[in-house]
Amino acid sequence: MITINEHYLKLQASYLFSDIAKRVAAFQEQNPEIEIIKLGIGDVTRPLPRACIDAFHKAVEEMASEASFRGYGPEQGYAFLREAIAANDFQARGADIQADEIFVSDGAKCDTGNIQELFSQDIKIAIPDPVYPVYLDTNVMAGRTGAYVDGRYQGIVYLDSTKENNFVPALPREKVDLIYLCFPNNPTGSTISTAELKTWVDYAREHQALILFDAAYEIFIRDQSLPHTIYEIEGAKEVAIEFRSYSKSAGFTGTRCAYTVIPKECTAYDRNGGRQPLHSLWNRRHCTKFNGVSYPVQRAAEAVYSEEGKTQTRELADYYLHNAASVRRAMQDLGFFFVGGENSPYVWINGGRDSWDFFDMLLNKAGVVCTPGAGFGRCGNGYIRISAFNSHEKVEKAMKRLKDALS
Amino acid sequence: MITINEHYLKLQASYLFSDIAKRVAAFQEQNPEIEIIKLGIGDVTRPLPRACIDAFHKAVEEMASEASFRGYGPEQGYAFLREAIAANDFQARGADIQADEIFVSDGAKCDTGNIQELFSQDIKIAIPDPVYPVYLDTNVMAGRTGAYVDGRYQGIVYLDSTKENNFVPALPREKVDLIYLCFPNNPTGSTISTAELKTWVDYAREHQALILFDAAYEIFIRDQSLPHTIYEIEGAKEVAIEFRSYSKSAGFTGTRCAYTVIPKECTAYDRNGGRQPLHSLWNRRHCTKFNGVSYPVQRAAEAVYSEEGKTQTRELADYYLHNAASVRRAMQDLGFFFVGGENSPYVWINGGRDSWDFFDMLLNKAGVVCTPGAGFGRCGNGYIRISAFNSHEKVEKAMKRLKDALS
Repeated sequence: MITINEHYLKLQASYLFSDIAKRVAAFQEQNPEIEIIKLGIGDVTRPLPRACIDAFHKAVEEMASEASFRGYGPEQGYAFLREAIAANDFQARGADIQADEIFVSDGAKCDTGNIQELFSQDIKIAIPDPVYPVYLDTNVMAGRTGAYVDGRYQGIVYLDSTKENNFVPALPREKVDLIYLCFPNNPTGSTISTAELKTWVDYAREHQALILFDAAYEIFIRDQSLPHTIYEIEGAKEVAIEFRSYSKSAGFTGTRCAYTVIPKECTAYDRNGGRQPLHSLWNRRHCTKFNGVSYPVQRAAEAVYSEEGKTQTRELADYYLHNAASVRRAMQDLGFFFVGGENSPYVWINGGRDSWDFFDMLLNKAGVVCTPGAGFGRCGNGYIRISAFNSHEKVEKAMKRLKDALS
Repeated sequence: MITINEHYLKLQASYLFSDIAKRVAAFQEQNPEIEIIKLGIGDVTRPLPRACIDAFHKAVEEMASEASFRGYGPEQGYAFLREAIAANDFQARGADIQADEIFVSDGAKCDTGNIQELFSQDIKIAIPDPVYPVYLDTNVMAGRTGAYVDGRYQGIVYLDSTKENNFVPALPREKVDLIYLCFPNNPTGSTISTAELKTWVDYAREHQALILFDAAYEIFIRDQSLPHTIYEIEGAKEVAIEFRSYSKSAGFTGTRCAYTVIPKECTAYDRNGGRQPLHSLWNRRHCTKFNGVSYPVQRAAEAVYSEEGKTQTRELADYYLHNAASVRRAMQDLGFFFVGGENSPYVWINGGRDSWDFFDMLLNKAGVVCTPGAGFGRCGNGYIRISAFNSHEKVEKAMKRLKDALS
């Protein structure tokens, strides 16, 4: 008899975005004349940079003639892209990462979801709260948690990110083996300083733990003192894997390209305590279960590193940061506590009430859609996330409406 | 301490293609004047159909302006593609598959590799020999096998595909729960009749087993009597998942698009014997660990179903089948036993000697590269695979050289 992986049955159905959609639809039906402004989802709205479009077209045309046609590429990505990544995203910042330590993929969601396959079943896992749900759900599916009780999975060490710790979790009291961190953070928009990140790297080195560092929002960092990559921290190459994406940096959410960095000296342990390089394990997984990213997409991603591409992606991030600044000003004027929006497209706002009540108030009084923080974990209750991914005009209009309605 | 998934250590390093590359390089060094002709790997060489190129360009340009830009798409694929697939690949053949039973992905390798996550650890798995190694390796990684002993993993039921059974394995004597089948077959090029496929569907229904049917080479079927999809068989929707790909049908090996069909009534069982729909389990996996296929790539795939696209993909398959016929004629003339090449781009040839000896003979006497059958499993010993993926000119030249050298 073919039997299922019963761990899937532990997963909680997420009604977050369907609940939002239902409330929005009901409001629109009662108020057909109001133009609803959506600042909820984390999806970009601006077109691809022209440098990427031009490179994309050129590569598509290469696929049209036998002489320049490309079949299967290297599973790890083409050298032209891996070399551009290593030089621009790492070596230019003093982080000694080589091209063959980069694995190009079709998304950071896939990579952050699949990476847990490399580890044994009985490791102790630390996951922030609030959090991007993929880290948690993929470990539930793999059977590394117990049941879901009182809003949390048993067996997981939750790292609370709260106002008290400025949304950078403290080191766990119990010993953990695998640590998920994301900075600039989704959903809070908070950042981590070099000194704070060093405490995590030191913890990992001391406890033979591994850090999975999700830096998908790196492009939004403007504070010169903040680390752009975990490999700016001494010793991180032995204990950290980093995930990056072109989704937010170049508008690739619908185009699909990302990458993962696994330094050659980054290791985990076998049952005899022997060091096992994670680079070769991930390479084996990548070659067995993945067949590389579409060639024209890799050429479009490479264009991010051209002179025009660098200027255009910087402008793209600045466009959204301009919106985030508008949101921050409005929240300041309204007297709400908030964090984020300076080095991040997200602003995390405390409304002094239940997340959903806050959500409903914004929708009903101003026709503005946000995301209730409770959808990201227990520590998100009381908060909402406002996203900067929309046009200047719509964000300005939304903030004016909020100020008129709430002040 | 962060510990690894020790099952990865059971994996056998595959030296097949690197061994081939070494022997080819050595031969070339000794014979610099000889133009080596490669009929080894299963990668296409002809450009993308013009209909796909045009649709690809159009969609790239849509990404260049805000009004037509697309961000995150549905993880399952856009409706335009899923509907075209359901109508053309299934309903047109009398197979009642609906658009929402199709999951678009970036490759059949990914899907055939990932699907095993849905099942419990202790199922009994049947895998053909010779075989595409992904089916086997992904189950090794997941811990569903024992050690590798005498060329085979313990705990797997191997389905021998031999001359005696015309390369269509017989039903297993012991009861199995999960069955991998691939027709037209890689590497043998053999096909399965409707009656033979029905015996497998009946077996699965009787034993509450599930069939994973890999139909990546469906486009090459020319024999009117052969089934194009397993859903042409009555009752298959309850017990079979089918994998398809544009890699070979439209030259997408470097462009990346494929799909998996999971009918709504296809189920596995929970530990209480309750039926659990695999559609919802896979949907959960797909939404958690995957973020959809690149939008322009989906538009290029959709163009396969336009009138021009249908004509051009048919011509593309015919081009390679013309080569396969040349290979068959040459092998006939040389007096070798062979199978495949009529409804498949692969010809599977018995040389009456060890696979690697046969490989060396073709390389040294004719400068032609093939793939030694032993690389696909124990039953492949004595055989080589010759691929039709090359130009008419090169295949003709290779066959002439073989005839001159060996007859």
